[in-house]
Amino acid sequence: MASRTQPARGMRDFLPLEVRRREYVIRIIREVYESYGFEPLETPAVENIETLLGKYGEEGNRLIFKILKRGEHEKSGEADLALRYDLTVPLARVVAEYQHQLPPFFKRYQIQPVWRADRPARGRFREFYQCDVDVTGSRSMIVETELCAAASDALEKLGFSDFIIRLNHRQALGGLLDRAGVERAQHEAALVALDKLDKIGVEGVRAELAERAISAEAAQRLLNFFREAAEVERAAEFVGDESCPPQAASNRAVLGRLLEFIGDHESGARGVEELRQILDYAEEAGIGARLKLDPSLARGLSYYTGAIMEINVSDLAGSLGGGGRYDNLIGMFLGRDVPACGFSLGLERIIVVMTERGMFPPDLERAPVDVMVTVWDAAGAGESLALARALRRAGLRVDVYPETHKLAKQFKYAAARGIPFVVVAGPDERARGEVALKDMRSGEQRAVHREALATAIKESLAR
Amino acid sequence: MASRTQPARGMRDFLPLEVRRREYVIRIIREVYESYGFEPLETPAVENIETLLGKYGEEGNRLIFKILKRGEHEKSGEADLALRYDLTVPLARVVAEYQHQLPPFFKRYQIQPVWRADRPARGRFREFYQCDVDVTGSRSMIVETELCAAASDALEKLGFSDFIIRLNHRQALGGLLDRAGVERAQHEAALVALDKLDKIGVEGVRAELAERAISAEAAQRLLNFFREAAEVERAAEFVGDESCPPQAASNRAVLGRLLEFIGDHESGARGVEELRQILDYAEEAGIGARLKLDPSLARGLSYYTGAIMEINVSDLAGSLGGGGRYDNLIGMFLGRDVPACGFSLGLERIIVVMTERGMFPPDLERAPVDVMVTVWDAAGAGESLALARALRRAGLRVDVYPETHKLAKQFKYAAARGIPFVVVAGPDERARGEVALKDMRSGEQRAVHREALATAIKESLAR
Repeated sequence: MASRTQPARGMRDFLPLEVRRREYVIRIIREVYESYGFEPLETPAVENIETLLGKYGEEGNRLIFKILKRGEHEKSGEADLALRYDLTVPLARVVAEYQHQLPPFFKRYQIQPVWRADRPARGRFREFYQCDVDVTGSRSMIVETELCAAASDALEKLGFSDFIIRLNHRQALGGLLDRAGVERAQHEAALVALDKLDKIGVEGVRAELAERAISAEAAQRLLNFFREAAEVERAAEFVGDESCPPQAASNRAVLGRLLEFIGDHESGARGVEELRQILDYAEEAGIGARLKLDPSLARGLSYYTGAIMEINVSDLAGSLGGGGRYDNLIGMFLGRDVPACGFSLGLERIIVVMTERGMFPPDLERAPVDVMVTVWDAAGAGESLALARALRRAGLRVDVYPETHKLAKQFKYAAARGIPFVVVAGPDERARGEVALKDMRSGEQRAVHREALATAIKESLAR
Repeated sequence: MASRTQPARGMRDFLPLEVRRREYVIRIIREVYESYGFEPLETPAVENIETLLGKYGEEGNRLIFKILKRGEHEKSGEADLALRYDLTVPLARVVAEYQHQLPPFFKRYQIQPVWRADRPARGRFREFYQCDVDVTGSRSMIVETELCAAASDALEKLGFSDFIIRLNHRQALGGLLDRAGVERAQHEAALVALDKLDKIGVEGVRAELAERAISAEAAQRLLNFFREAAEVERAAEFVGDESCPPQAASNRAVLGRLLEFIGDHESGARGVEELRQILDYAEEAGIGARLKLDPSLARGLSYYTGAIMEINVSDLAGSLGGGGRYDNLIGMFLGRDVPACGFSLGLERIIVVMTERGMFPPDLERAPVDVMVTVWDAAGAGESLALARALRRAGLRVDVYPETHKLAKQFKYAAARGIPFVVVAGPDERARGEVALKDMRSGEQRAVHREALATAIKESLAR
């Protein structure tokens, strides 16, 4: 019986056109990241299991793919290794391991797959690529700004014009919750509820806060704040002018409201001040209109300590990417804290949206070769190989039909594959040092001297 | 306590320079493969475990990394998934799954990591990249020839000039063993012993054949053949002339001896005929001098059915790559046979040799950025971000120093990283619409108008 031939659940095979599309997106992201001075890093797909456990919260632990011990230990049913779950924890490990080889500010990008045993759904896979940029070693808000600018440039270069980078701050959030009267032990539960404001609305969040045993008074204060923030935001959009465009005006208004609510709450006020700094820098970095201050943005990962960001477009429920500051994670490996901040673009979702919107350049669908050399007969196969060699040396991409089928069948194959040129070296042509060159697009066929063949094809292709 | 920070056993982190070297090699291999009309394919790192089990022999099964079932099934200690062990079995699965979407001759390349729980050693890792090219759908020896030519071109383009592609044929080997009187059931055991001829010599192989219960008479006949083949090979090398260079003369002589020994053994003679065909085609494809007929080459994998190849250089014990024809493997997935032949280059070993021989272009060690913009003070940070943005728009790779440290410290950082240009925008310069541009290589510093900055840097870099 033949074996199953589908890929494993939630995993995908990428046929040539899909690989080309993925490589196109990766190439552009990489070029932009490099223009910001980020350098490439790669880490193994497999990590020691204790490197990953306890870094992603309860849910994360559950979704990690674990690898059985080998040999005589296989029977124990225990795992000692696990598949990479994100690119941030391996970076933290790397910064700890190679601290003396890396520059004080390590700006790295990493574009590699990660694996999560999540329930597969539309746009959610068990193997997917992340495109991360991170800077370690600095607490400056220049870092947050440059990360947002790099992600923004990458999306623009891919052809996106309608995305928004939502911005918030974990410490501002903490101040907000404190001021509203949510107890510290309930902060995390409150954040999970708040994060759904967009999806389930004010009353939905109120119900969820109650469910999570947060007092009705605290809930009311929180929801009042968000209602007022939304109001000042809307009002400010209409007063924008040349010196302060609508998005900037609205961000300033929300920032003002936030500071008012948080007052002299120390870490909260520091968070708001960092947000103000990022918004100011963003104007000068040319991405002011992209940033939208959103006090309800929470983001799931537990390791964030400062600013958090998320990129959205209107026609996608999830985000195209996100990130934030995590000043304590490297310390879990190194024993002393190293500040860090990062941004991750989700390759799969970018590709989903680009495919739906038809954003890929059409030349990715071009035939994989410029010219196919036919094989006249068994005795002529050598001549075809020699021709192919000469054409490749001239820089062309060349296929040799591998069988001595009838020429009509060989031409049909070339046509089906969209190959623009076909070369025939029959005995008559060979005797004259010529070949027949057929332009499959025009149907025109002509005799060309062997020596002139590569040039003839290149000239036709350039037309 | 800080966690362990080394990568898992046998796995490696690749810091920026190493990634650049790997990408350089991969880019060249990919370009050459594409010039032969191969198209990219990618498959998941994780396969259903039954896809892999039973395809690589006993040893292979043992070396497969197995993934624990998840959720409530985790406790069972059972595995349902496994890590990719090579790129050939996934290709066979893909050809079976997408048979109606793929062209009749599917020429694909695939450059991805594989995982084997092997004992780590010099040049042997548990995660390593393979660079495979395969053609499915044809039994023509044009395929073998093109595969050898592509691998040869790739190595030449990387700067290798001293490699040899050893060539043999499973059916010729079978005929040889039959004729020598080795029983069919002992063929595999005999091949394992023969494969070591280079390493352990004639008497070593004789002892190993005896150990594997192969009769002394059969062993004697086999070893006689190899002794004679080596003699005709050496003799022929001296009679090579312009019309038949030494390698071709020696191949022909060995081929003649092989045919003589195998006689009218049907499949054996067919194998020899295919070898003759490949050697003839190879002359026309321009790789005649690279191919060396080696009747003792066996190769480990059990799925080969026809020609087998292996690439060696003198200063590496193992091979740089290898491959062969496997006409039955796809049938294990599809239920009907589809002929196939492939070649795999080993990225890690290529990099080991290139590193030892100093074959990488020096510009891979260039600084990752063209220019660093310093930050004068907190108030000037925005101006630095705006400058960086303008320089990036002009196509330069730009770093912004993230902190308001003393300028001397910022310059020191740029020097340590080998960054060729540093820009300072102090208050005086800013007032004049200028910046100070320092060429870190010459030490020369000059005032440049903001608008002229990108051009000034580009001109200096081009010099």
